[in-house]
Amino acid sequence: MDIKSLIRNIPDFPKPGIVFRDITTLLSHPEGLRYTIDTLTQKSIEANFRPDYVVGMESRGFLFGVPLAYQLNAGFIPVRKPGKLPAAVHTIEYDLEYGSDKLEIHQDALSSHHRVLIVDDLMATGGTARATAQLLDKIGCEVLGFAFIIELKELGGRQRLPDLPIITLVEY
Amino acid sequence: MDIKSLIRNIPDFPKPGIVFRDITTLLSHPEGLRYTIDTLTQKSIEANFRPDYVVGMESRGFLFGVPLAYQLNAGFIPVRKPGKLPAAVHTIEYDLEYGSDKLEIHQDALSSHHRVLIVDDLMATGGTARATAQLLDKIGCEVLGFAFIIELKELGGRQRLPDLPIITLVEY
Repeated sequence: MDIKSLIRNIPDFPKPGIVFRDITTLLSHPEGLRYTIDTLTQKSIEANFRPDYVVGMESRGFLFGVPLAYQLNAGFIPVRKPGKLPAAVHTIEYDLEYGSDKLEIHQDALSSHHRVLIVDDLMATGGTARATAQLLDKIGCEVLGFAFIIELKELGGRQRLPDLPIITLVEY
Repeated sequence: MDIKSLIRNIPDFPKPGIVFRDITTLLSHPEGLRYTIDTLTQKSIEANFRPDYVVGMESRGFLFGVPLAYQLNAGFIPVRKPGKLPAAVHTIEYDLEYGSDKLEIHQDALSSHHRVLIVDDLMATGGTARATAQLLDKIGCEVLGFAFIIELKELGGRQRLPDLPIITLVEY
Protein backbone atom coordinates (compact mmCIF):
# COMPACT_ATOMS: atom_id res chain seq x y z
CA MET A 1 0.00 0.00 0.00
CA ASP A 2 1.25 3.47 -0.89
CA ILE A 3 0.99 5.55 2.28
CA LYS A 4 2.10 8.72 0.49
CA SER A 5 -0.87 8.56 -1.86
CA LEU A 6 -3.18 8.73 1.18
CA ILE A 7 -1.53 11.88 2.58
CA ARG A 8 -3.15 15.06 1.30
CA ASN A 9 -1.06 18.04 0.23
CA ILE A 10 -2.48 21.44 1.20
CA PRO A 11 -0.67 24.42 -0.27
CA ASP A 12 -0.19 27.62 1.74
CA PHE A 13 -1.08 26.14 5.15
CA PRO A 14 -0.44 27.28 7.83
CA LYS A 15 1.11 30.15 5.82
CA PRO A 16 1.92 31.08 2.22
CA GLY A 17 4.64 29.00 0.60
CA ILE A 18 4.27 26.01 2.94
CA VAL A 19 2.80 22.72 1.64
CA PHE A 20 1.10 21.07 4.61
CA ARG A 21 1.21 17.25 4.66
CA ASP A 22 -2.25 16.36 5.94
CA ILE A 23 -2.44 12.94 7.60
CA THR A 24 -6.18 13.13 8.32
CA THR A 25 -6.88 11.49 4.95
CA LEU A 26 -4.54 8.63 5.94
CA LEU A 27 -6.13 8.25 9.38
CA SER A 28 -9.63 8.08 7.94
CA HIS A 29 -8.74 5.35 5.45
CA PRO A 30 -9.36 2.07 7.31
CA GLU A 31 -6.83 -0.02 5.37
CA GLY A 32 -4.36 2.87 5.28
CA LEU A 33 -4.56 3.37 9.04
CA ARG A 34 -4.11 -0.34 9.65
CA TYR A 35 -1.20 -0.61 7.23
CA THR A 36 0.52 2.46 8.72
CA ILE A 37 0.32 1.15 12.29
CA ASP A 38 1.37 -2.36 11.23
CA THR A 39 4.33 -1.03 9.25
CA LEU A 40 5.44 1.24 12.09
CA THR A 41 5.26 -1.77 14.41
CA GLN A 42 7.16 -4.03 12.02
CA LYS A 43 9.92 -1.45 11.48
CA SER A 44 10.21 -0.92 15.24
CA ILE A 45 10.71 -4.65 15.74
CA GLU A 46 13.23 -4.82 12.88
CA ALA A 47 15.14 -1.92 14.47
CA ASN A 48 15.23 -4.05 17.62
CA PHE A 49 13.36 -1.44 19.62
CA ARG A 50 11.99 -3.17 22.73
CA PRO A 51 10.67 -0.17 24.63
CA ASP A 52 9.15 -0.24 28.07
CA TYR A 53 7.35 2.93 27.02
CA VAL A 54 6.39 4.80 23.89
CA VAL A 55 6.50 8.57 24.41
CA GLY A 56 4.31 10.72 22.14
CA MET A 57 4.01 14.47 21.88
CA GLU A 58 0.70 16.37 22.06
CA SER A 59 -1.37 16.08 20.09
CA ARG A 60 -0.56 14.34 16.79
CA GLY A 61 2.02 12.15 18.50
CA PHE A 62 -0.89 10.63 20.42
CA LEU A 63 -2.47 9.40 17.18
CA PHE A 64 0.22 6.84 16.36
CA GLY A 65 1.97 6.57 19.73
CA VAL A 66 -0.82 4.74 21.54
CA PRO A 67 -1.50 2.12 18.83
CA LEU A 68 2.25 1.50 18.56
CA ALA A 69 2.55 1.09 22.34
CA TYR A 70 -0.34 -1.39 22.21
CA GLN A 71 1.29 -3.40 19.42
CA LEU A 72 4.68 -3.46 21.19
CA ASN A 73 3.17 -4.38 24.58
CA ALA A 74 4.56 -1.16 26.01
CA GLY A 75 2.99 1.64 28.02
CA PHE A 76 2.30 5.08 26.57
CA ILE A 77 3.50 8.32 28.13
CA PRO A 78 2.29 11.69 26.85
CA VAL A 79 4.49 14.77 26.53
CA ARG A 80 2.18 17.77 26.74
CA LYS A 81 2.00 21.52 26.48
CA PRO A 82 2.27 23.47 29.74
CA GLY A 83 -0.51 23.18 32.32
CA LYS A 84 -2.17 20.06 30.91
CA LEU A 85 -0.54 17.36 33.03
CA PRO A 86 -2.02 17.25 36.54
CA ALA A 87 0.90 15.96 38.65
CA ALA A 88 4.46 17.28 39.15
CA VAL A 89 6.30 17.74 35.82
CA HIS A 90 9.70 18.22 34.28
CA THR A 91 9.60 21.13 31.81
CA ILE A 92 11.80 21.99 28.84
CA GLU A 93 11.80 25.22 26.85
CA TYR A 94 12.88 25.03 23.21
CA ASP A 95 13.25 27.45 20.33
CA LEU A 96 10.79 27.75 17.47
CA GLU A 97 11.22 29.66 14.23
CA TYR A 98 9.69 32.64 15.99
CA GLY A 99 9.80 32.62 19.80
CA SER A 100 9.85 29.53 21.96
CA ASP A 101 7.62 26.82 23.39
CA LYS A 102 7.56 24.47 26.36
CA LEU A 103 6.90 20.76 26.81
CA GLU A 104 6.18 18.83 29.99
CA ILE A 105 6.34 15.23 31.21
CA HIS A 106 5.23 13.77 34.54
CA GLN A 107 8.20 13.45 36.87
CA ASP A 108 7.09 10.03 38.09
CA ALA A 109 6.24 8.62 34.65
CA LEU A 110 9.68 7.15 34.08
CA SER A 111 12.75 5.98 35.98
CA SER A 112 16.38 5.89 34.89
CA HIS A 113 16.34 2.18 34.00
CA HIS A 114 13.50 2.49 31.47
CA ARG A 115 13.90 2.12 27.70
CA VAL A 116 11.88 4.57 25.63
CA LEU A 117 10.86 5.08 21.99
CA ILE A 118 9.86 8.62 20.91
CA VAL A 119 7.00 8.81 18.36
CA ASP A 120 5.49 11.69 16.41
CA ASP A 121 3.61 12.04 13.16
CA LEU A 122 6.16 14.21 11.38
CA MET A 123 9.82 15.19 11.60
CA ALA A 124 10.37 18.70 10.25
CA THR A 125 13.21 20.64 11.90
CA GLY A 126 13.34 18.01 14.65
CA GLY A 127 12.87 20.66 17.35
CA THR A 128 10.03 18.97 19.21
CA ALA A 129 11.65 15.54 19.10
CA ARG A 130 14.98 16.96 20.26
CA ALA A 131 13.29 18.77 23.15
CA THR A 132 11.53 15.53 24.11
CA ALA A 133 14.83 13.62 24.08
CA GLN A 134 16.33 16.31 26.32
CA LEU A 135 13.37 16.00 28.67
CA LEU A 136 14.03 12.24 28.88
CA ASP A 137 17.73 12.90 29.47
CA LYS A 138 16.73 14.87 32.58
CA ILE A 139 15.13 11.68 33.89
CA GLY A 140 18.15 9.65 32.81
CA CYS A 141 16.25 6.93 30.98
CA GLU A 142 17.49 5.28 27.80
CA VAL A 143 16.15 6.68 24.52
CA LEU A 144 16.25 3.83 22.00
CA GLY A 145 15.35 5.90 18.96
CA PHE A 146 12.62 7.76 17.12
CA ALA A 147 9.70 6.81 14.87
CA PHE A 148 7.86 9.18 12.54
CA ILE A 149 5.31 8.67 9.81
CA ILE A 150 6.65 11.54 7.69
CA GLU A 151 10.12 13.04 7.24
CA LEU A 152 10.55 16.44 5.57
CA LYS A 153 14.13 15.83 4.49
CA GLU A 154 14.99 19.33 3.32
CA LEU A 155 14.54 20.69 6.85
CA GLY A 156 17.42 18.61 8.20
CA GLY A 157 15.69 17.26 11.29
CA ARG A 158 17.97 14.20 11.49
CA GLN A 159 21.01 16.39 12.04
CA ARG A 160 19.44 17.97 15.11
CA LEU A 161 18.55 14.69 16.80
CA PRO A 162 20.85 12.50 18.91
CA ASP A 163 22.75 9.81 16.99
CA LEU A 164 20.14 7.07 17.40
CA PRO A 165 18.08 4.94 15.00
CA ILE A 166 15.26 6.83 13.27
CA ILE A 167 12.33 5.12 11.56
CA THR A 168 10.28 6.99 8.97
CA LEU A 169 7.63 5.68 6.58
CA VAL A 170 7.29 8.49 4.02
CA GLU A 171 9.82 11.09 2.86
CA TYR A 172 9.37 14.44 1.13
CA MET B 1 -8.15 -6.23 35.69
CA ASP B 2 -9.37 -3.24 37.72
CA ILE B 3 -9.09 -0.22 35.45
CA LYS B 4 -10.16 2.17 38.20
CA SER B 5 -7.20 1.19 40.36
CA LEU B 6 -4.87 2.35 37.56
CA ILE B 7 -6.48 5.81 37.31
CA ARG B 8 -4.82 8.34 39.61
CA ASN B 9 -6.90 10.79 41.63
CA ILE B 10 -5.42 14.29 41.86
CA PRO B 11 -7.20 16.62 44.28
CA ASP B 12 -7.63 20.31 43.48
CA PHE B 13 -6.74 20.08 39.76
CA PRO B 14 -7.37 22.10 37.66
CA LYS B 15 -8.87 24.11 40.51
CA PRO B 16 -9.66 23.77 44.23
CA GLY B 17 -12.42 21.28 45.05
CA ILE B 18 -12.10 19.27 41.82
CA VAL B 19 -10.68 15.73 41.91
CA PHE B 20 -9.00 15.16 38.55
CA ARG B 21 -9.15 11.59 37.20
CA ASP B 22 -5.70 11.13 35.68
CA ILE B 23 -5.55 8.48 32.95
CA THR B 24 -1.80 8.87 32.34
CA THR B 25 -1.14 6.18 34.93
CA LEU B 26 -3.50 3.86 33.04
CA LEU B 27 -1.91 4.66 29.67
CA SER B 28 1.59 3.95 30.95
CA HIS B 29 0.65 0.55 32.37
CA PRO B 30 1.22 -1.91 29.49
CA GLU B 31 -1.33 -4.50 30.62
CA GLY B 32 -3.76 -1.79 31.70
CA LEU B 33 -3.55 -0.05 28.33
CA ARG B 34 -4.04 -3.32 26.48
CA TYR B 35 -6.96 -4.35 28.68
CA THR B 36 -8.64 -0.95 28.33
CA ILE B 37 -8.44 -0.96 24.53
CA ASP B 38 -9.53 -4.60 24.33
CA THR B 39 -12.50 -3.99 26.65
CA LEU B 40 -13.55 -0.88 24.76
CA THR B 41 -13.42 -2.93 21.55
CA GLN B 42 -15.36 -5.83 23.03
CA LYS B 43 -18.08 -3.56 24.42
CA SER B 44 -18.36 -1.77 21.07
CA ILE B 45 -18.90 -5.10 19.32
CA GLU B 46 -21.44 -6.19 21.97
CA ALA B 47 -23.30 -2.89 21.47
CA ASN B 48 -23.43 -3.84 17.78
CA PHE B 49 -21.52 -0.71 16.77
CA ARG B 50 -20.18 -1.31 13.28
CA PRO B 51 -18.82 2.15 12.49
CA ASP B 52 -17.27 3.23 9.25
CA TYR B 53 -15.43 5.84 11.30
CA VAL B 54 -14.44 6.52 14.87
CA VAL B 55 -14.50 10.24 15.68
CA GLY B 56 -12.28 11.45 18.54
CA MET B 57 -11.94 14.89 20.05
CA GLU B 58 -8.62 16.69 20.54
CA SER B 59 -6.56 15.72 22.32
CA ARG B 60 -7.38 12.97 24.80
CA GLY B 61 -9.98 11.52 22.44
CA PHE B 62 -7.09 10.72 20.12
CA LEU B 63 -5.54 8.42 22.75
CA PHE B 64 -8.26 5.77 22.64
CA GLY B 65 -10.00 6.70 19.39
CA VAL B 66 -7.24 5.56 17.06
CA PRO B 67 -6.60 2.17 18.71
CA LEU B 68 -10.36 1.55 18.76
CA ALA B 69 -10.64 2.46 15.06
CA TYR B 70 -7.79 0.05 14.33
CA GLN B 71 -9.46 -2.77 16.28
CA LEU B 72 -12.84 -2.18 14.59
CA ASN B 73 -11.34 -1.92 11.08
CA ALA B 74 -12.69 1.62 10.85
CA GLY B 75 -11.06 4.91 9.90
CA PHE B 76 -10.34 7.64 12.44
CA ILE B 77 -11.51 11.24 12.09
CA PRO B 78 -10.24 13.96 14.44
CA VAL B 79 -12.41 16.77 15.80
CA ARG B 80 -10.05 19.63 16.61
CA LYS B 81 -9.84 23.06 18.15
CA PRO B 82 -10.08 26.00 15.74
CA GLY B 83 -7.30 26.58 13.23
CA LYS B 84 -5.69 23.15 13.48
CA LEU B 85 -7.35 21.35 10.56
CA PRO B 86 -5.85 22.42 7.24
CA ALA B 87 -8.78 21.98 4.82
CA ALA B 88 -12.33 23.44 4.79
CA VAL B 89 -14.15 22.77 8.07
CA HIS B 90 -17.55 22.74 9.72
CA THR B 91 -17.42 24.63 13.02
CA ILE B 92 -19.61 24.44 16.10
CA GLU B 93 -19.58 26.78 19.08
CA TYR B 94 -20.68 25.39 22.43
CA ASP B 95 -21.04 26.67 25.98
CA LEU B 96 -18.56 25.96 28.75
CA GLU B 97 -18.98 26.64 32.46
CA TYR B 98 -17.43 30.04 31.81
CA GLY B 99 -17.57 31.29 28.23
CA SER B 100 -17.63 29.12 25.13
CA ASP B 101 -15.39 27.07 22.87
CA LYS B 102 -15.35 25.85 19.27
CA LEU B 103 -14.73 22.52 17.59
CA GLU B 104 -14.04 21.78 13.94
CA ILE B 105 -14.23 18.82 11.56
CA HIS B 106 -13.14 18.57 7.94
CA GLN B 107 -16.12 19.11 5.64
CA ASP B 108 -15.03 16.30 3.33
CA ALA B 109 -14.22 13.78 6.08
CA LEU B 110 -17.71 12.26 6.11
CA SER B 111 -20.78 11.85 3.94
CA SER B 112 -24.39 11.43 4.94
CA HIS B 113 -24.40 7.64 4.50
CA HIS B 114 -21.57 7.03 7.00
CA ARG B 115 -21.99 5.39 10.40
CA VAL B 116 -19.93 6.97 13.17
CA LEU B 117 -18.91 6.20 16.77
CA ILE B 118 -17.85 9.13 18.99
CA VAL B 119 -15.01 8.42 21.44
CA ASP B 120 -13.46 10.43 24.26
CA ASP B 121 -11.57 9.62 27.44
CA LEU B 122 -14.12 11.10 29.85
CA MET B 123 -17.77 12.14 30.00
CA ALA B 124 -18.26 14.98 32.46
CA THR B 125 -21.09 17.39 31.57
CA GLY B 126 -21.25 15.86 28.09
CA GLY B 127 -20.74 19.25 26.45
CA THR B 128 -17.91 18.27 24.13
CA ALA B 129 -19.58 15.03 23.06
CA ARG B 130 -22.87 16.80 22.46
CA ALA B 131 -21.17 19.47 20.36
CA THR B 132 -19.44 16.74 18.35
CA ALA B 133 -22.77 14.98 17.74
CA GLN B 134 -24.25 18.29 16.55
CA LEU B 135 -21.27 18.77 14.24
CA LEU B 136 -21.98 15.33 12.75
CA ASP B 137 -25.67 16.19 12.43
CA LYS B 138 -24.63 19.09 10.19
CA ILE B 139 -23.08 16.54 7.86
CA GLY B 140 -26.12 14.30 8.20
CA CYS B 141 -24.28 11.08 8.98
CA GLU B 142 -25.53 8.46 11.41
CA VAL B 143 -24.18 8.63 14.96
CA LEU B 144 -24.32 5.08 16.35
CA GLY B 145 -23.40 5.99 19.90
CA PHE B 146 -20.65 7.07 22.28
CA ALA B 147 -17.76 5.38 24.05
CA PHE B 148 -15.88 6.79 27.05
CA ILE B 149 -13.34 5.33 29.43
CA ILE B 150 -14.65 7.34 32.41
CA GLU B 151 -18.11 8.63 33.34
CA LEU B 152 -18.51 11.26 36.08
CA LYS B 153 -22.09 10.36 36.90
CA GLU B 154 -22.93 13.26 39.20
CA LEU B 155 -22.43 15.73 36.34
CA GLY B 156 -25.33 14.25 34.38
CA GLY B 157 -23.63 14.04 31.00
CA ARG B 158 -25.94 11.26 29.77
CA GLN B 159 -28.95 13.56 30.03
CA ARG B 160 -27.34 16.06 27.68
CA LEU B 161 -26.51 13.55 24.96
CA PRO B 162 -28.82 12.25 22.23
CA ASP B 163 -30.75 9.09 23.13
CA LEU B 164 -28.17 6.62 21.80
CA PRO B 165 -26.16 3.76 23.32
CA ILE B 166 -23.31 4.93 25.57
CA ILE B 167 -20.41 2.69 26.58
CA THR B 168 -18.35 3.54 29.67
CA LEU B 169 -15.71 1.45 31.44
CA VAL B 170 -15.36 3.21 34.80
CA GLU B 171 -17.85 5.29 36.79
CA TYR B 172 -17.36 7.85 39.57
